[in-house]
Amino acid sequence: MSIDRTTLTNSAAVRQACREGSFTDHTAGLAPGFAQANLVILPREHAFDFLQFCRRNPKPCPLLDVTEPGSPLPSTIAPDADIRTDLPRYRIWEHGELVDEPTDISDRWQDDMVGFLIGCSFTFEAALSRAGLPIRHLEQGTNVPMFRTNVACHPAGVFAGPMVVSMRPYAPAEAIRAVQVTSRYPEVHGAPVHIGHPGLIGISDLARPDYGDPVPVADDELPVFWACGVTPQAVLAAADLPLAITHAPGAMFVSDLSDEELGQ
Amino acid sequence: MSIDRTTLTNSAAVRQACREGSFTDHTAGLAPGFAQANLVILPREHAFDFLQFCRRNPKPCPLLDVTEPGSPLPSTIAPDADIRTDLPRYRIWEHGELVDEPTDISDRWQDDMVGFLIGCSFTFEAALSRAGLPIRHLEQGTNVPMFRTNVACHPAGVFAGPMVVSMRPYAPAEAIRAVQVTSRYPEVHGAPVHIGHPGLIGISDLARPDYGDPVPVADDELPVFWACGVTPQAVLAAADLPLAITHAPGAMFVSDLSDEELGQ
Repeated sequence: MSIDRTTLTNSAAVRQACREGSFTDHTAGLAPGFAQANLVILPREHAFDFLQFCRRNPKPCPLLDVTEPGSPLPSTIAPDADIRTDLPRYRIWEHGELVDEPTDISDRWQDDMVGFLIGCSFTFEAALSRAGLPIRHLEQGTNVPMFRTNVACHPAGVFAGPMVVSMRPYAPAEAIRAVQVTSRYPEVHGAPVHIGHPGLIGISDLARPDYGDPVPVADDELPVFWACGVTPQAVLAAADLPLAITHAPGAMFVSDLSDEELGQ
Repeated sequence: MSIDRTTLTNSAAVRQACREGSFTDHTAGLAPGFAQANLVILPREHAFDFLQFCRRNPKPCPLLDVTEPGSPLPSTIAPDADIRTDLPRYRIWEHGELVDEPTDISDRWQDDMVGFLIGCSFTFEAALSRAGLPIRHLEQGTNVPMFRTNVACHPAGVFAGPMVVSMRPYAPAEAIRAVQVTSRYPEVHGAPVHIGHPGLIGISDLARPDYGDPVPVADDELPVFWACGVTPQAVLAAADLPLAITHAPGAMFVSDLSDEELGQ
């Protein structure tokens, strides 16, 4: 039995509904003003390299919290939460293959696991909206278009691969304002990584994103590209680890941080 | 045979002299304009927790580079350098005890070791000087006074302990300017952590620093406190690890980064 989304107006309510199993859907628009996060869980054996990868690639992988090995508590961003139960849905990866999509991972938890909570673009999209900047894919009711680039991330151990970017089209003056607004949020991908010439970063056709849905770009607009939280998931899939756990797409962890706490 | 300090005007020259064994002294004032760094080397077994500790405590432990396990090359800040040979002097710690102070650690290197290069206050002192702000301990020709505080660092695994701070006295208008100037350098300790009331952070007597030398503070001045790179060394000593290697006090790693590259 699914709970009414409109009742989930704060982070604790979302997490409680997930924990009880009464909410298993995507989290876009829930608990407005609370920062949401991507989740990656790895055994300690791979945690140093992944932490290095995130440190070396802060734009696609901005860390909001990293748990102590064996502890499921994200003590910095939501001390009362449990990352084993408090997300709507998870994905279990074995050797890069998706093997299960459960709503609770308590039975897969090991006493050496480390959770990485990575900033999400929902926070900067809220800031763009407050600044009066339109967000094309939201207007269209679709998912943001995302593209693999030819820009290599800085590798760390087994973790390597290209940066994935999300794209939002803007008129030139809006693009300038979008740079200013998102620069204030370095912990949720920050300023764009590219603007205006997709071919220069290996994107040949804006109408054919690698993830998400296409959006129209008018002749007098510029495509603006931000580093995207899909990057660590793509890198993780390529790393061929015996076991990794992530959130399911769109089914994020809702933290107690306010979006504004992440602003500068 | 020791080389003439005044010939060591750039980072590569300092490192070459260290590598050849012709320079084993402190590095203050060498290679002006190049950023210097604190060094901590740990076996991989403890590297995740120490990286977490630094991430959770960025003011005392701002990371400039972290090497790949087994690689002595600090590829981000000095790709041609070797952290086993390119510092003037090292300290070898076994179970928290100082057991040796060699000028080369090649014979202690293990194929799972990780080097952590941590920003140093020399960079922000250069910026303070350029802004016309006096630096009392340099005027006095002594080491900066440093104090253990009652402010606990955020622990990570075996790493825990109080924040150590350095103190520079300023007239009120200078103190305001010093906040502004050092805020531009988050990767080398950044803005002060305290100003004006040492008792509030557990410091009872400014004339008796825990490390370094005392400096006079006039009645119309304020003591200004910055997070200090001695913090990770004190935490390391308390962690009682079988083996850790650090630079010797004042004998820093000289990187290829310019001080200005670390400014915002």
